[in-house]
Amino acid sequence: MMIKVNPLENQGIEFELDHIGIATPSLEEGKRLYELLGLGPADVEEVPSEKVRVAMYELGNGARVELLESTDPESAVGKFLKRRGPGIHHICLRVKDIRSVMNNLLKAGVRLTSEEPRPGAHNCLVTFIHPSEAGGVLIELSQRP
Amino acid sequence: MMIKVNPLENQGIEFELDHIGIATPSLEEGKRLYELLGLGPADVEEVPSEKVRVAMYELGNGARVELLESTDPESAVGKFLKRRGPGIHHICLRVKDIRSVMNNLLKAGVRLTSEEPRPGAHNCLVTFIHPSEAGGVLIELSQRP
Repeated sequence: MMIKVNPLENQGIEFELDHIGIATPSLEEGKRLYELLGLGPADVEEVPSEKVRVAMYELGNGARVELLESTDPESAVGKFLKRRGPGIHHICLRVKDIRSVMNNLLKAGVRLTSEEPRPGAHNCLVTFIHPSEAGGVLIELSQRP
Repeated sequence: MMIKVNPLENQGIEFELDHIGIATPSLEEGKRLYELLGLGPADVEEVPSEKVRVAMYELGNGARVELLESTDPESAVGKFLKRRGPGIHHICLRVKDIRSVMNNLLKAGVRLTSEEPRPGAHNCLVTFIHPSEAGGVLIELSQRP
């Protein structure tokens, strides 16, 4: 019998890298390199709830690169672009049981953007760990439907 | 028979997300959240050639989170921390044939940090695409031994 030492391990929680979200002023411009690498053509979709247009590139291990173009300067991505310029906006970890992960984080005093998971793109349940809790990195947690 | 439309696809090149490199002023501090998520304990190693200490967390789909602590303020990571503060330093795409990918990028006028692949950690062959070519993102290309 193995001794379980990790806080969440005994709940059967696993993590996969789901995607990297990259803010770009222009999808057309941002796509150039990825198309050149042969990762395209991208699947482009508008996500009105987040006020972004997204170009998605599937990588071999089920991870994706998501280019994010703001459709509103007051959206989260629009503000990020104004403040920081183009670059990586967030990373997303796929989890099996988002409520369980959230409960453990909230119990440990980690700030999340919501106390309950919210509906995200593709009917996923999502929340975000505040960058101040994760060394300047905005981490999305996502559970697939 | 499928029609091949992507520039590099017909060379059998595939990409996987290998890791995300996150610059942190302190591994101990940076590790806190990931240990809390149950991703630890991390595999910690010093990479003298890059002047960093690295804590690596394996995710389910073969991708890793790599926390990078500078051992020298004049290292690339040290300068990044001074200029930008903690956060995502680079992403690494694993490729099957790095020379072929590099040749195609160089031919298209894309700036790389080297014209030939260089030896990286774990005997990988690596190069970097300049952030100005990739919308502010530093992309490492890596071929496993």
